[in-house]
Amino acid sequence: MKKRITVIGGGTGTMPVLNGLKNYPDLELTVIVNMTDDGGSNAVVRDEFGLLPLSDLRKSIIALAETNDKLLRDMFTYRFSKGEGLRGHTLGNLMMMALTDIYGSELEAVKKLSKLFNVKGNIIPVTRDNTILVAHYENGKKIKSEHLIDEPEDDDLKYSKIVKLSVEPKAKATKESIKAILDSDFIIIGPGDLYTSTLANLVIDGISEALQKTKAKIILITNLMTKLGQTQWMKASDLVNEVVKYSKIKPHYILHNKSKINPQIIERYKEENEYVLEDDLDKTNYEVIRANFLNSKVTKKDKGDELKRSLVRHDPKKLGKILYGIFTYENFSKVFT
Amino acid sequence: MKKRITVIGGGTGTMPVLNGLKNYPDLELTVIVNMTDDGGSNAVVRDEFGLLPLSDLRKSIIALAETNDKLLRDMFTYRFSKGEGLRGHTLGNLMMMALTDIYGSELEAVKKLSKLFNVKGNIIPVTRDNTILVAHYENGKKIKSEHLIDEPEDDDLKYSKIVKLSVEPKAKATKESIKAILDSDFIIIGPGDLYTSTLANLVIDGISEALQKTKAKIILITNLMTKLGQTQWMKASDLVNEVVKYSKIKPHYILHNKSKINPQIIERYKEENEYVLEDDLDKTNYEVIRANFLNSKVTKKDKGDELKRSLVRHDPKKLGKILYGIFTYENFSKVFT
Repeated sequence: MKKRITVIGGGTGTMPVLNGLKNYPDLELTVIVNMTDDGGSNAVVRDEFGLLPLSDLRKSIIALAETNDKLLRDMFTYRFSKGEGLRGHTLGNLMMMALTDIYGSELEAVKKLSKLFNVKGNIIPVTRDNTILVAHYENGKKIKSEHLIDEPEDDDLKYSKIVKLSVEPKAKATKESIKAILDSDFIIIGPGDLYTSTLANLVIDGISEALQKTKAKIILITNLMTKLGQTQWMKASDLVNEVVKYSKIKPHYILHNKSKINPQIIERYKEENEYVLEDDLDKTNYEVIRANFLNSKVTKKDKGDELKRSLVRHDPKKLGKILYGIFTYENFSKVFT
Repeated sequence: MKKRITVIGGGTGTMPVLNGLKNYPDLELTVIVNMTDDGGSNAVVRDEFGLLPLSDLRKSIIALAETNDKLLRDMFTYRFSKGEGLRGHTLGNLMMMALTDIYGSELEAVKKLSKLFNVKGNIIPVTRDNTILVAHYENGKKIKSEHLIDEPEDDDLKYSKIVKLSVEPKAKATKESIKAILDSDFIIIGPGDLYTSTLANLVIDGISEALQKTKAKIILITNLMTKLGQTQWMKASDLVNEVVKYSKIKPHYILHNKSKINPQIIERYKEENEYVLEDDLDKTNYEVIRANFLNSKVTKKDKGDELKRSLVRHDPKKLGKILYGIFTYENFSKVFT
């Protein structure tokens, strides 16, 4: 029987995990996708079309696509860089908007595209409710909107801790995402922007409850770097503690990169006050798997994308290999680390 | 050897011809598409993106597509009805804009899409030059822009004859369209909006010369109805004479519908001062093939489209059958009519 794996996230950070796992034929993959994205093209999609944010669904489709049709991929990932009203939209989002209109729902559009792109796995929005991400900061301030949390206009907030994350109005998890969590053998949380991607899923009503109920083993993948405005004050244990706080469960495994990151790249991050996430996991009691998870290719910034792009990424193959090892050998961590 | 058939037009009127011929396996079809469209979405495409008008290329792709993939067709023909900057665009045009950017030219985009849609035939823009259609009227006025000729703002012009059609600046025919005309066994001109679709091809430098040089037999299909602002004063012989005037060749065959049009539909056209194109072809010396070419389905107006839609159309199967007869039997008209 296929092992059932559910990945919680949906943002750019999740993509190496999906890419790394999709080629194992004996896994049934599901990705639960954050639905609070309200930046760039998603603002138009939400405000003018009344649709769920589509960008993370689009990214998941491409990450899990097995089609060899370069033309389809080229079209789906193309971003318009000019044209009043078109600039900033990806053609993929426009295709999803059209299909949502034709077939009646975002979920149906994802299903149709999954078939066209020969997607290996299930792509599920964490909620269907129109809701907004809200961050409360240690300095008493409150920001309502994922992209403003991601890139605070107020410089103070970049250095203030987020003490509480929630959504307004309250949003209910889709029954498909709850079912996926309950039926899973393994659940992978992270990597990704901690508040605006990973935890944005965990604050949806029903997700933490399902995580507490499921018999699945929970694997948490830490981030490589801190991110100003979100995790600037954290070491690895702090990141884990935040996930524990919102999920109300303890992970069975923590995956942390132990490979050295190129000093030149570290310098570039430093310029933006971002640093390697320090490994202080020995002071915790979690089962930590340290390995080289680093992608040796330096990811270039995508000029068409308004969002800042990370320059270091997890490597799909390296992640996939270790994760598959965990799925396969119950006592993996004792054997390999 | 396959018979080589070239259809000159590109607008809505051409589509029944393409649809009617594409299922004959022993024909090699080429459609030469008018490039002066500047209405609706094409204005944005031309002005903001500097591209050729794409709508008629898009229609030709769909007309000749043999793909059974409903999803692809649904996406390609979808028209956005809301969203600032998106309203009025078809997703198909947006796909073509993206592919033109990715692959470097409109022609390359058409080729890629032709493959994706399993297009039976070749789709060729009549020119690659950015040019504008110009009509000179009997009352001395001059209109520069295809969509203003199609729907004159000045009511006088709707009843004034167009005495001269040209393009500004002069535009050179693509070598592909000239080659298609020279290499053809049969060339089909019309039906379609006479000035803004059919003749808009014939005024491109090199097209008339190629038509004079080719050994292909020329078939002219008359329109079913007159069109206010273009052919309101014409009988069938006048329409033929206009084509002869701009092409400088005489057609070998003229196809004219002899089936009666539903009186209720005729009434609806009358309200807009449009009438059945009267058959006075007996006074000419052309070889006229009269048959039932009428589509029994009444075509509904497409609400999403800003352009007025005809309600009566030629029937693809009926057209295809007679045309194929002409291609196959040299002495067709003597045998069947």
